Amino acid sequence: MAHNKSYTLGELASLLNLKLVGDEQCAIHSLATLKNATPGQLSFLSNPSYINQLESCNASAVIVDAKFADACQASALISESPYVSFAEATALFDDSPAYEPSVHPSATIHSSVEIPDTAYVGPNVVIEPGAKLGADCVIGSGCFLGENVTLGKNCFLHSNVSIYHRVNVGNNVIIHSGTVIGADGFGFAFDGKKSVKIRQLGSVLIGNDVDIGSCTTIDRGALEDTVISDGVKIDNQVQIGHNCKIGEHSVICGCTGIAGSVTIGKYCVMGGASGAVGHINIADKVQVSAMSLVSESITEPGIYSSGTWHMKTSQWKRSNIRFQQLDSIAKRLKELENPTDKN
Amino acid sequence: MAHNKSYTLGELASLLNLKLVGDEQCAIHSLATLKNATPGQLSFLSNPSYINQLESCNASAVIVDAKFADACQASALISESPYVSFAEATALFDDSPAYEPSVHPSATIHSSVEIPDTAYVGPNVVIEPGAKLGADCVIGSGCFLGENVTLGKNCFLHSNVSIYHRVNVGNNVIIHSGTVIGADGFGFAFDGKKSVKIRQLGSVLIGNDVDIGSCTTIDRGALEDTVISDGVKIDNQVQIGHNCKIGEHSVICGCTGIAGSVTIGKYCVMGGASGAVGHINIADKVQVSAMSLVSESITEPGIYSSGTWHMKTSQWKRSNIRFQQLDSIAKRLKELENPTDKN
Amino acid sequence: MAHNKSYTLGELASLLNLKLVGDEQCAIHSLATLKNATPGQLSFLSNPSYINQLESCNASAVIVDAKFADACQASALISESPYVSFAEATALFDDSPAYEPSVHPSATIHSSVEIPDTAYVGPNVVIEPGAKLGADCVIGSGCFLGENVTLGKNCFLHSNVSIYHRVNVGNNVIIHSGTVIGADGFGFAFDGKKSVKIRQLGSVLIGNDVDIGSCTTIDRGALEDTVISDGVKIDNQVQIGHNCKIGEHSVICGCTGIAGSVTIGKYCVMGGASGAVGHINIADKVQVSAMSLVSESITEPGIYSSGTWHMKTSQWKRSNIRFQQLDSIAKRLKELENPTDKN
Repeated sequence: MAHNKSYTLGELASLLNLKLVGDEQCAIHSLATLKNATPGQLSFLSNPSYINQLESCNASAVIVDAKFADACQASALISESPYVSFAEATALFDDSPAYEPSVHPSATIHSSVEIPDTAYVGPNVVIEPGAKLGADCVIGSGCFLGENVTLGKNCFLHSNVSIYHRVNVGNNVIIHSGTVIGADGFGFAFDGKKSVKIRQLGSVLIGNDVDIGSCTTIDRGALEDTVISDGVKIDNQVQIGHNCKIGEHSVICGCTGIAGSVTIGKYCVMGGASGAVGHINIADKVQVSAMSLVSESITEPGIYSSGTWHMKTSQWKRSNIRFQQLDSIAKRLKELENPTDKN
Repeated sequence: MAHNKSYTLGELASLLNLKLVGDEQCAIHSLATLKNATPGQLSFLSNPSYINQLESCNASAVIVDAKFADACQASALISESPYVSFAEATALFDDSPAYEPSVHPSATIHSSVEIPDTAYVGPNVVIEPGAKLGADCVIGSGCFLGENVTLGKNCFLHSNVSIYHRVNVGNNVIIHSGTVIGADGFGFAFDGKKSVKIRQLGSVLIGNDVDIGSCTTIDRGALEDTVISDGVKIDNQVQIGHNCKIGEHSVICGCTGIAGSVTIGKYCVMGGASGAVGHINIADKVQVSAMSLVSESITEPGIYSSGTWHMKTSQWKRSNIRFQQLDSIAKRLKELENPTDKN
Repeated sequence: MAHNKSYTLGELASLLNLKLVGDEQCAIHSLATLKNATPGQLSFLSNPSYINQLESCNASAVIVDAKFADACQASALISESPYVSFAEATALFDDSPAYEPSVHPSATIHSSVEIPDTAYVGPNVVIEPGAKLGADCVIGSGCFLGENVTLGKNCFLHSNVSIYHRVNVGNNVIIHSGTVIGADGFGFAFDGKKSVKIRQLGSVLIGNDVDIGSCTTIDRGALEDTVISDGVKIDNQVQIGHNCKIGEHSVICGCTGIAGSVTIGKYCVMGGASGAVGHINIADKVQVSAMSLVSESITEPGIYSSGTWHMKTSQWKRSNIRFQQLDSIAKRLKELENPTDKN
């Protein structure tokens, strides 16, 4: 797919700060995988297990580690981190819409709010009293920024994002459509007959360079703030409960649910649809597999999983029947091992 | 519940193309289950295990297979596929609001966009440059259609749907409120200190006759398009990652999470809250049970499950302790079976 | 964090109807946990296991059960239910924005709709023909209320909520942003080649005193109504399928998915990311653990769980291999126990 931008390989080498082995004048119009690339495209080899694809690749150029340069039939852009260089290349070919600084006349902005000259505020945006926007922000159509919300510089809120009062967002934060930041945490005191609402008096504090996907929800704290630290990346459909603290550069994959008052360390990865029960701590550099539940604190880095693998349902049912008998099975085994215990 | 529409059984037989055994003039004002139907209502027998309910049913008429017609006390509409005929009947009694062709003055539509005379564009809709709508589309209030989005004929977007730039939607597609199509896929290259964003240069391609529920998210592809094929039905709260390909007529139940670069075949059913890890293939006609995770490719049709059944928590804890010892249990069993191995 | 409101302990004792042991004139400006409280703050001791924190707590006052009053260094507010009293105190310190009765000029309200003098209707709200609002309702910006929607008194809809036609909401209902009530249930009749849509002719009936979180979806019934009873509390990202009935005062935690036609009793708790398959009944006072799936009806109160605990992935893989062999393991054990059966 052509992305309406074109560079010579010489330009790309310069822009990406990479060494070129090949034709400086060759025009590159887009990016592609090794398998699907055609002439005029730039590809990359990040995972060495794809090296076979390198030989048959039709790309005009490939971003490769120096040690694979010789295996490359096409021109080579030599990188110590081909995947990072590829990520940087995607920015060069990105044709996402640009939003010129302006305030759409249909936006409802309280008179106390100052919009920087460099900001874009789209149609039907609502900005409540006391809110503050940094330079270069883009606020997509239909977004709601509650009272005293603050956004740092260069934030990009896509359409229909809702941010409740007093939420504090850092610089360079991207928030995708449908996401809700700062709604009430889920807290009730049961009085024996009914649930009495605990008003959620804290807020949400989001650091710098945070990305948040679409239809994700991050609740405000009960008494203190829910905290999303610098560099955290959060996918779609994620739920983060009140009072959680997510450490720097952790990654939360789609559909993950984090209950209230969970502290997650730095450089963690919560796999897709994983979860954590409330009031636990997860150490730095913990990885949790897809659809695994963390049911108590984890104190050591490492990879953790729960659940069982998929099987044909007929076999799985048999295993499940036995799972229900498992304590009995273990005890019977022990008896066989120690028959004299019975005497 | 009366739905404000009424037909005689003769009319229904004609509209549904079914043979009537009974009173042509009988007026039917609504639909109901066998168990709850009252006179003036039409019911259906689809699952033979409900045949006992047929005898005591108070409906004025029942859609039945010919072989059950005699068991029917009421008038009978004879169908080879009673459940499909029932589905067709629901369309006759549907009283959902009709939207007359019109463009609400509060909509913000770029001057380059042509709205067909037969389309409805609701309040506060935002349509960006280059977007195209087919005939008979309904765009509910607060929807956002990004640059160069194309919708085919007869699409119905309920309120507050967000569709990002370049997403391509076929004909007869229904998208429910809060859903987000074409947000960035979740892709980052880790540079040793931080996650570098991989811009998502692909888009989303949605075929014809696709239904998409509410608060569902379908991400744009990294380099190529995420593809939802003709006839696919997607429920609420579903997450479909970048680069996925969902085959024709597959059904994705609510809360399912599909990681990136997953290919799902035709006529598959992903059960509620099921999942699939990234970069795998699932064959045609695979069914995955509720809350089951597909953790590697599935090459054969069939029914697959993971996880364990619910139990009383006290018993479940005992099974769980033993699950953690399971490898040891298996080895000890083998030792008992082969005691001489120990020598 | 100071919440801009301040009370003397004497005032708090009176407002919360509690006995004060301590300084009536002491000013309290906010609430905090025992661990983090500083002078000028009010804390609470609900869980006796935190009694050690009581002794070192720096709060000016603590809400405590009478039996712990002596252990309290600070002033004490004596409560039979300290957690409920704390919940009531949060309401006193809540500084959420107040919305003065008014109708924003950008709202699109059908001429047939009467807005009570005491209601707030925010920017870009859309209210369709036949809708009815009770007194004291707050309708946040960008909300959509479909045809013939009725809201009782004192409902609070945060921004960007979508409510489909004919949904009926009781009094004192809170609905958070991004939530969708009354979208089509997921029903299709498969005709051998494609899925034929079953129009969803029912609606959703929501009782009094219901709280619903953000990005939650509750589908309309197929023929009858989906019912959410009085006092039910629903967290974020919850999916409730068509025809479900949720009993009084049940609590549904975040990310839970309830398939269609499920009946849940009174005073149940569905833990975070739990689920229930379709067409089952769950008795009163059932608690389901986090990420557990209820796969058949539960007839007795109690606590239920499914799944397995998290483990280091390396160990978990070994248990998983054995789980797949579990039926064989059980049979082999039986053979060892009954060796003569083999003869």
